[in-house]
Amino acid sequence: MSSATSFSRLLGMIVLDKIGVVTLKAFVMKKIGEVGWAEKPVPECGPLDALVKPIALAPCTSDVHTVWEGAVGERSDLTLGHEAVGEIVEVGSFVKDFKVGDVVIVPAITPDWSSLEAQAGYPMHSGGMLGGWKFSNIKDGVFSEVFHVNDADGNLALLPSGVDPADACMLCDMVPTGFQASEVAGVEYGDSICVIGIGPVGLMAVAGAVLKGAGRVFAVGTRPNCVAVAKEYGATDIISYKDGTIDSQVLKMTDGKGVDKVLIAGGNVDTFAEAVRMVKPYGSVSNVNYLGSGDFIKIPRAEWGVGMSHIDIQGGLMLGGRLRMEKLASLLVSGRLDTSKLITHRLSGFDAIEESLLLMKDKPSDMIKPVVIL
Amino acid sequence: MSSATSFSRLLGMIVLDKIGVVTLKAFVMKKIGEVGWAEKPVPECGPLDALVKPIALAPCTSDVHTVWEGAVGERSDLTLGHEAVGEIVEVGSFVKDFKVGDVVIVPAITPDWSSLEAQAGYPMHSGGMLGGWKFSNIKDGVFSEVFHVNDADGNLALLPSGVDPADACMLCDMVPTGFQASEVAGVEYGDSICVIGIGPVGLMAVAGAVLKGAGRVFAVGTRPNCVAVAKEYGATDIISYKDGTIDSQVLKMTDGKGVDKVLIAGGNVDTFAEAVRMVKPYGSVSNVNYLGSGDFIKIPRAEWGVGMSHIDIQGGLMLGGRLRMEKLASLLVSGRLDTSKLITHRLSGFDAIEESLLLMKDKPSDMIKPVVIL
Amino acid sequence: MSSATSFSRLLGMIVLDKIGVVTLKAFVMKKIGEVGWAEKPVPECGPLDALVKPIALAPCTSDVHTVWEGAVGERSDLTLGHEAVGEIVEVGSFVKDFKVGDVVIVPAITPDWSSLEAQAGYPMHSGGMLGGWKFSNIKDGVFSEVFHVNDADGNLALLPSGVDPADACMLCDMVPTGFQASEVAGVEYGDSICVIGIGPVGLMAVAGAVLKGAGRVFAVGTRPNCVAVAKEYGATDIISYKDGTIDSQVLKMTDGKGVDKVLIAGGNVDTFAEAVRMVKPYGSVSNVNYLGSGDFIKIPRAEWGVGMSHIDIQGGLMLGGRLRMEKLASLLVSGRLDTSKLITHRLSGFDAIEESLLLMKDKPSDMIKPVVIL
Amino acid sequence: MSSATSFSRLLGMIVLDKIGVVTLKAFVMKKIGEVGWAEKPVPECGPLDALVKPIALAPCTSDVHTVWEGAVGERSDLTLGHEAVGEIVEVGSFVKDFKVGDVVIVPAITPDWSSLEAQAGYPMHSGGMLGGWKFSNIKDGVFSEVFHVNDADGNLALLPSGVDPADACMLCDMVPTGFQASEVAGVEYGDSICVIGIGPVGLMAVAGAVLKGAGRVFAVGTRPNCVAVAKEYGATDIISYKDGTIDSQVLKMTDGKGVDKVLIAGGNVDTFAEAVRMVKPYGSVSNVNYLGSGDFIKIPRAEWGVGMSHIDIQGGLMLGGRLRMEKLASLLVSGRLDTSKLITHRLSGFDAIEESLLLMKDKPSDMIKPVVIL
Repeated sequence: MSSATSFSRLLGMIVLDKIGVVTLKAFVMKKIGEVGWAEKPVPECGPLDALVKPIALAPCTSDVHTVWEGAVGERSDLTLGHEAVGEIVEVGSFVKDFKVGDVVIVPAITPDWSSLEAQAGYPMHSGGMLGGWKFSNIKDGVFSEVFHVNDADGNLALLPSGVDPADACMLCDMVPTGFQASEVAGVEYGDSICVIGIGPVGLMAVAGAVLKGAGRVFAVGTRPNCVAVAKEYGATDIISYKDGTIDSQVLKMTDGKGVDKVLIAGGNVDTFAEAVRMVKPYGSVSNVNYLGSGDFIKIPRAEWGVGMSHIDIQGGLMLGGRLRMEKLASLLVSGRLDTSKLITHRLSGFDAIEESLLLMKDKPSDMIKPVVIL
Repeated sequence: MSSATSFSRLLGMIVLDKIGVVTLKAFVMKKIGEVGWAEKPVPECGPLDALVKPIALAPCTSDVHTVWEGAVGERSDLTLGHEAVGEIVEVGSFVKDFKVGDVVIVPAITPDWSSLEAQAGYPMHSGGMLGGWKFSNIKDGVFSEVFHVNDADGNLALLPSGVDPADACMLCDMVPTGFQASEVAGVEYGDSICVIGIGPVGLMAVAGAVLKGAGRVFAVGTRPNCVAVAKEYGATDIISYKDGTIDSQVLKMTDGKGVDKVLIAGGNVDTFAEAVRMVKPYGSVSNVNYLGSGDFIKIPRAEWGVGMSHIDIQGGLMLGGRLRMEKLASLLVSGRLDTSKLITHRLSGFDAIEESLLLMKDKPSDMIKPVVIL
Repeated sequence: MSSATSFSRLLGMIVLDKIGVVTLKAFVMKKIGEVGWAEKPVPECGPLDALVKPIALAPCTSDVHTVWEGAVGERSDLTLGHEAVGEIVEVGSFVKDFKVGDVVIVPAITPDWSSLEAQAGYPMHSGGMLGGWKFSNIKDGVFSEVFHVNDADGNLALLPSGVDPADACMLCDMVPTGFQASEVAGVEYGDSICVIGIGPVGLMAVAGAVLKGAGRVFAVGTRPNCVAVAKEYGATDIISYKDGTIDSQVLKMTDGKGVDKVLIAGGNVDTFAEAVRMVKPYGSVSNVNYLGSGDFIKIPRAEWGVGMSHIDIQGGLMLGGRLRMEKLASLLVSGRLDTSKLITHRLSGFDAIEESLLLMKDKPSDMIKPVVIL
Repeated sequence: MSSATSFSRLLGMIVLDKIGVVTLKAFVMKKIGEVGWAEKPVPECGPLDALVKPIALAPCTSDVHTVWEGAVGERSDLTLGHEAVGEIVEVGSFVKDFKVGDVVIVPAITPDWSSLEAQAGYPMHSGGMLGGWKFSNIKDGVFSEVFHVNDADGNLALLPSGVDPADACMLCDMVPTGFQASEVAGVEYGDSICVIGIGPVGLMAVAGAVLKGAGRVFAVGTRPNCVAVAKEYGATDIISYKDGTIDSQVLKMTDGKGVDKVLIAGGNVDTFAEAVRMVKPYGSVSNVNYLGSGDFIKIPRAEWGVGMSHIDIQGGLMLGGRLRMEKLASLLVSGRLDTSKLITHRLSGFDAIEESLLLMKDKPSDMIKPVVIL
């Protein structure tokens, strides 16, 4: 199917104002360090795929890393964004469960479910490490008038009625990334936890730990707005890295026992050493933080039991796909999780994407997460 | 150490009114169908053990089964009760972590931690099936002025300051039994659950599922008080067995999809067939309900996929011991769980034990759980 | 793509003798109780699919169940067979990893990998219970001159060089079904095991238990050939059901301790009661046997600990797909597993399919498994 | 019980030549860098404990680390040794399952089973990191005429009849340490594995991987004797670190795919970087090697997926205790494992302990493991 015929199908539905123009507007990375707008071809919809028009979008720290730190390398006119709720405007001929007009949650990670990695239980690495991460990485992202989703049946989830698209937009990346930390770590009833970093992912790591039965939850951070929300999500103790090393504070507050699990949602390659020093000999250090620089994560030999402790050093890209989105959405429907606490800034209109990303870059002190409503 | 010397140590502390009398008063099963009071020797405290004076006690449906259904066979003057918070009045010479005067939570299950079964991860079956269940089964229970606890370091937990002993008394059996259902079933974020039975254990199964991240939670029951509390603990849908079979209702409410896990905390051997009929092909049916009669649990062959489904039929006695009690107590301290909702009747004084048990037997319509405060 | 154009591509490759005839010959179930040959249209190859010409085929007891017990209901001209190694004769346009001429192992279970069930870790139930089982169930099977495979990239595996296609044919169903029993049960180093039934699946359950580190392995069966091969695969003790109940024998031979896990690869719905009676209180009863009749599997209430044991009653259709086939094939390549011991009858030529199935039906005393080489 | 009365009980049984002398002879670490013989008091046998007279002993590389690298710090007259099979000469009054005269396997790790860490599933860390390691660490070791074992019922296992004590001596440390690598890593059927280091622990890592169903097993080492035995235990490919980095060789031999799991049984803190570079994005790096020097284990950031891979970095001291010993012994009885391949030097007599340790220190090229038979 050519993009022309693809466009002709779009034409009658949503882009009446663009007759004769087979391009769409997108917010892109022009090159490392520079963003802007571009006209790009309407993406082609394969037989298993869908095209989606965004309704709610959110920028991510990853977009900031991509543009201003070159996290995925040099790119030219790469459409940014990977957090979106939208309306389907076209589906491929083999798509069974979705139709034009459906409002859907689109996960940041859209795996190839037939891949060997997915069959092994790790769809996020389908086709190779991090291969399930396609948006604004190996293909154009969602900051576009219409964007492409591979394997619609496998990767989209219907927005349940009554759920605010902005709230649901937090399910695309923030929630599954934060929750992944507790899943990888295997949090159990009554576990003591330390969450390092309380940006939006860290806050979801706090909420995710509580929703797995954590008892005492230390949260490390200093921004007042984040601290307040961390408490609302269930943090019992707040620690500031300004008051000493994290491990010394946690060990003091736990009478030297340390915590069962450390969830890393902030910091850098040096954070792991602090984590190992304050976790129990059979605990877990579970990372969901993008590590942008440094050659090595350094695990302190002696505190790691000269190789004989059972402290697991783990990490992991979020699990994407349809089932995960459906299950997380059910947490909103059933009132287990209120993602609206994360959303400090609500912008309006497609053009506000730029402002939202700059907010994410500049991080004003009262911001947790902006959302753009279209 | 003889019971005489044991008694001499007790003497100065709590039993000043009994000089010269080396017996204690206990509420016992006289024989099947009959309860009463008895004078019994002060138990001997072995080198690893502790003697405890109760502060808060609760009767359990198991006590009712024991006395009026002969669940553990014929017994004569067996002290009843296995839910207690109390004060230590004696510790053995090898006990390291507890001392006289400590206020402790005593789990219903007090395993032999060196046993092969405990080493295999199943301390509740130490020494043989259900062997970790000692109180009011293979030794005298806790409805006694002073009772014996084997392996104090392994089986007691300090009552955290600020926690109400009555609330903590729910940690001895109700909470770990109810929570076990979700642990055995492996509840995950966003799972749909059906909890059958909303007595105190079923309510804790609801709370335990929510604290493991369950989304939609169907709760099956009819008593208004229990229904109201089930909703407070997070049930999203209430089902009455009076409105048709459970499975037909759940299948209807889920568009034929069924639920991810069924937690059985009520019913009988026939309940499993309903459970299998409404769980997904890869779900779990997890039982924590004592099955008092019937020769067989019957699993419907066709709905069990002619042997080829992945529906696990599982069950399990609660996990006891110190670590479990400490971890559950941390849920009270951190505000994750409010067990006070279970306690509908608060009685006072040692003699009220009898009334509390009769309440448990007669189940007035407004009762969930009585507690006796000493 | 029409079957005509599909056929024209086949034409030049393998069916030179059939010019002008767009049908293929297949061995089918005419109706319940009757088999025969049929001319059927060449299957169409979708964009993700492949058409395969068999090189080695094996009949399965399931085929016998299908035809003579009506296991999947009444059918007319359903092509039988689900165990095949073959050569690819056509691939869809989206297939990336396979090409015409590749020799491949085709698993009996070919899931839809995008399905919610596969995303949940249970691809064999994709689309509904047992939904991954397509061959000779919801579409034509492999006893055909050419057969269709859905999702070639997800469901085929290259036959490693040096591996006999007949040996590899045991990987399609016998090995993954037998091995599944130990996986579901969670066999660990030194576990004691009882395998009930030592037909080809039971023998692979024995081999699979040994390859998971089992210690003592009781195998229940009587046919001399199977007994001999069971010992070669690692059974340490042979039990005949003619010498008393299985549980009484196992309990006697283990001084009343029982075994850690029971793997059921034979018997019927009543076998589970014997299994529960001889497994440890925290053991597993793991079924891979098709249960063709009986309303209920009956779990003895008392021996199941009145609901309080941790004896899991589990089952499961084999895991199919490419990764599983590749991993099992590596066991042949590395010499861990010798499936040739299973193959007692080697027939030759397409027409021998009928004889092979009748062998499977009649089970001569020296037979374990026949294979047809094409 | 005083050591005098303890000794009087020993007296009639085994130390007839020492009348009037309440000391025993032991081979000790005099100080860092120096070994020798010492007369030490007969250890006292507590009520749960046992005294054991060795029958077979083996030195360990850990003893070499202890003496010549100061691995556990400065010590004076610490009895060395933690691998022994012996005969019980005294048991405490509470010991139920063992009696004087029983021949037992004594694990290197003898946990406190009531500890919180054991209750959490990590008995090897009972009381604190590595706290289950008592012999020649926090108390005297087994290179003594008689040695003390804490918690006899929990930590001893009967030597099965027909098993050579020397072979069984390999179960004390070599087998459980090597096998632990595969357990922590979660080896599954058909996994590809790389075992780094093929000393006795590495060889048991090879055997343990094969006994968990590994397919292709790369083994890294160069000593001819070890290479030959590695192949006998199931290594399919031998790699020499002299031919380039391990990761470059493994990646080349696997067409760039890498292996599922890397088991580290040799090398140093820098070995982990090579491991991460050759393991799949969802693999495991599982260490059982004592890391004697270096401040940090360094995990390469980029190859670890900038924190987003699912490569677990894990390690762990062996699991000790009775159940583990019984289960491993069943592998010898059932013929799954032949530990005699490890034993290259068989010495005779108590005085040969010194020679055996020096062999371990000097590592002659043909040595894998020496055993002293008493």
